[in-house]
Amino acid sequence: MSKLRVSCFSISLDGFGAGPEQTLENPLGIGGEALHEWFVPTRTFQKVHGQEGGTTGPDDDFGARQFANIGAWILGRNMFGPVRGPWPDESWKGWWGDNPPYHRPVFVLTHHARAPITMEGGTTFHFVTDGIETALAQARQAAEGKDVLLGGGAATIRQYLRAGLIDEMHVAISPVMLGSGEHLFAGIDTIKLGYRRTEYVMTPNATHFVLRKG
Amino acid sequence: MSKLRVSCFSISLDGFGAGPEQTLENPLGIGGEALHEWFVPTRTFQKVHGQEGGTTGPDDDFGARQFANIGAWILGRNMFGPVRGPWPDESWKGWWGDNPPYHRPVFVLTHHARAPITMEGGTTFHFVTDGIETALAQARQAAEGKDVLLGGGAATIRQYLRAGLIDEMHVAISPVMLGSGEHLFAGIDTIKLGYRRTEYVMTPNATHFVLRKG
Repeated sequence: MSKLRVSCFSISLDGFGAGPEQTLENPLGIGGEALHEWFVPTRTFQKVHGQEGGTTGPDDDFGARQFANIGAWILGRNMFGPVRGPWPDESWKGWWGDNPPYHRPVFVLTHHARAPITMEGGTTFHFVTDGIETALAQARQAAEGKDVLLGGGAATIRQYLRAGLIDEMHVAISPVMLGSGEHLFAGIDTIKLGYRRTEYVMTPNATHFVLRKG
Repeated sequence: MSKLRVSCFSISLDGFGAGPEQTLENPLGIGGEALHEWFVPTRTFQKVHGQEGGTTGPDDDFGARQFANIGAWILGRNMFGPVRGPWPDESWKGWWGDNPPYHRPVFVLTHHARAPITMEGGTTFHFVTDGIETALAQARQAAEGKDVLLGGGAATIRQYLRAGLIDEMHVAISPVMLGSGEHLFAGIDTIKLGYRRTEYVMTPNATHFVLRKG
């Protein structure tokens, strides 16, 4: 059964999934890069970004699970890029260069239609304008029985979480305070929504936990 | 220099300092007891509650720091008891029996005046009706140069935090989701208030961190 999963989504000690004032230079907001310091040194992260080596252990295990059995991705528009409102032209093709680290169909939520973009390495960006359920249906179909990974950002995860559509969610709490930004759980009662914590793993770099529905 | 400190304040993975629906039977709200599971087995907790034995290590070290160099306590009224509104009589004397684990002057914030209560073992409850600054001034005077410990609950800590009056704050994230209740940090920008994280210690039972002002 194909699942909708969130994986390796990092939040601060005070619960923010990105810092304030996101810009082209600071896609994760002020201080937001520090959220991923547990993940960057891992073998999985290094390999995905074309590098050799990297650390192994629980941090890397969670990283590796992110990419296992994934058939398609869903991204919020802010995670795809800093452009807001109607697309001024076709020039923005994501943060990741010609060969993005997805290598699968990626469904980008937006209010503004745009033709699909085929990138190198198997990534195709599809733009979905009619809501999160449609994006999920399209991604499931593209995934051909594999899981769909919901990449973020926080606002997009919150939408899917409130709708009860996420099956499994791995969150990493990083040892950083952000003070403001996009909060992941504020105002969302995961208990009432039927989620329970099934895993809890601490490393020197992060506190990992997994929520599952039902 | 006497500090105002918060110590061993436990929050859930989703940031709540107590669960929903606090009652006489459930003073920490539904599920809230689980917040303290890291602390209860420690030698410090056991000793404070008149028991022998208990675990040592980082959890216990944080527990021991809570009680070091403390001259007075401040508590919110909900932490003192479940009574709301005017005191119906003098019968409620806290959750802790005749010999509360404070052994020092305790200043209870309330909107309703009441005469001090002298308990066994050195604890006296004083009721302060004119605000958090007054309670702090009185507690500092009673502490005679030692630190003042702000015991909670979350709403009271939020008031002092917003006013920038807390000098040092140790928080423990417990491996539990609560879904709703009293959130500790929601809407409070600790970075703008001048706090920075100075310590970060993980144990199998909790993620500890310390914020300091300046």
